[in-house]
Amino acid sequence: MTDLPGHVDIRDVSLRDGLQIENPIPLSAKLEILAAVAATGVREMEATAFVSPSKVPALADAAELAAELHNFADIEFSALVASPNGAKRAIAAGLRSIEYVVSAADGHSRANVGRTSAEATEQIIEIVAIARDCGVVVEVIIATAWDCPFDGPTPPQRVLDIVAAATEAGIDRLAIADTIGTATPRRVSDLIALVRPGIGDIPLGAHFHNTRGTGLASAYAAICSGVTRLDASVGGLGGCPFAPGASGNIATEDLVYLLRDSGVHVDVDLQAAIAAARISQHAVGHELPSALLRAGDRILG
Amino acid sequence: MTDLPGHVDIRDVSLRDGLQIENPIPLSAKLEILAAVAATGVREMEATAFVSPSKVPALADAAELAAELHNFADIEFSALVASPNGAKRAIAAGLRSIEYVVSAADGHSRANVGRTSAEATEQIIEIVAIARDCGVVVEVIIATAWDCPFDGPTPPQRVLDIVAAATEAGIDRLAIADTIGTATPRRVSDLIALVRPGIGDIPLGAHFHNTRGTGLASAYAAICSGVTRLDASVGGLGGCPFAPGASGNIATEDLVYLLRDSGVHVDVDLQAAIAAARISQHAVGHELPSALLRAGDRILG
Repeated sequence: MTDLPGHVDIRDVSLRDGLQIENPIPLSAKLEILAAVAATGVREMEATAFVSPSKVPALADAAELAAELHNFADIEFSALVASPNGAKRAIAAGLRSIEYVVSAADGHSRANVGRTSAEATEQIIEIVAIARDCGVVVEVIIATAWDCPFDGPTPPQRVLDIVAAATEAGIDRLAIADTIGTATPRRVSDLIALVRPGIGDIPLGAHFHNTRGTGLASAYAAICSGVTRLDASVGGLGGCPFAPGASGNIATEDLVYLLRDSGVHVDVDLQAAIAAARISQHAVGHELPSALLRAGDRILG
Repeated sequence: MTDLPGHVDIRDVSLRDGLQIENPIPLSAKLEILAAVAATGVREMEATAFVSPSKVPALADAAELAAELHNFADIEFSALVASPNGAKRAIAAGLRSIEYVVSAADGHSRANVGRTSAEATEQIIEIVAIARDCGVVVEVIIATAWDCPFDGPTPPQRVLDIVAAATEAGIDRLAIADTIGTATPRRVSDLIALVRPGIGDIPLGAHFHNTRGTGLASAYAAICSGVTRLDASVGGLGGCPFAPGASGNIATEDLVYLLRDSGVHVDVDLQAAIAAARISQHAVGHELPSALLRAGDRILG
């Protein structure tokens, strides 16, 4: 339990994963969240997704939002894409970092993008080619890496097949995602132990939801297993707005609290993250599940 | 991360720690919770506390509740006490297992029982003598083992001093408690590493609250560090009823979910725990923070 990295990079995903299933909020409200999150000191943010506006209306303003990002020169912004066409749109909008998401489970892949996992995996080469021509960073995010809402547990070999194709294609970063919030620490450690040997120096990230209360435990297991990049959202944005209190992404402030106490350095200021969570809660108009937002920091010695 | 015990004993604390800050509920409602929790298969329950009824009105019916426990012969019931007199009352009421709580921090100790930590520690000998005469099991629970709401972080030596006195006095079990829900996994591992060498074969338990979202992560760190006894409450009972959604004890069902997925055997059935959480939520009349109560189990392969 004690082989912790000295530093962990937190990528704030509030504006994309945090907002994608919310009712659409105005661009001005997103910019308020963006400014508050930027004030935390975070170095990376997932700004939006270039996907079908009819499927994800909350992110239909992707190009408009992208046009505002130059105001935050210290932050690396990324956008999620689900196809080569999405990658082209993201790059045309000015993004210098894209995340291509591939579901390891066919059930989720078909429901999400109308293709099998193998078909989505084949497109990694094309995405990398598009990005490389423009000097853009490509991350592959493997969704449903542990469980699929349709297919049940994901056989690890399905994840490893995508890892092999992605590293062969020359991606810059890799992440494994607990898309539906079912992962637990032991399963996290086990999968990472299988994935790491095949990725060389490619940075490995992990993405957890707190749907079953295990998000932070899984995140801690991930960093104990050598992961140094974690996604999180302020306030734990990303839960279903129609199920009050249902947990979304792991909350940035809860993660920062845990990491700080573990002697792991992060760029995110805890009080600024709580302030950003409060602003986000106001923007979406309902209670967010973050623990620190309610309880605050402990008395420090 | 992989040196997990094969079995962990969960002690359900719903009726004591879970209810103590709630508005008092009728004995009949407590018996409904008790029956539902008993149906989970759990082997140990903290039934009540023999403390001042004026300070903890929700547990003023301790003797009446104790009189009902003989109906559940398969379960070991314990009661919390804070003084030799409380120990005598508990034993007179029929309890065969008592927990004597000692705060490691003077601020909390004074506020809770009007004595310093050293004064409370001195009474362990008397409590053990009372219990031993009757063949009753004694556990010492060290409260505020990580942090005190008044004094801030608790110096580990204060915990170790109580451990030394308790083992010297001949206690049967020891537990360390994160009374205010501030512990994080690294600090949990660190404290357990200090405590374990001094306790020989005395079973070590841990008690966490999820106030800052870190309860399950801390519990997992504890079992990775050799703890085989964990307290939990169905639904995560034990939060402040005046702060909706504020987390209490770690939720039994969330813990069972995590442990089952980690290959750790527990006596508690997951679906029965969720059912008990639902009954408890109805009994206290407000939403409980358990994640599984909302999200349910994942699809099993």
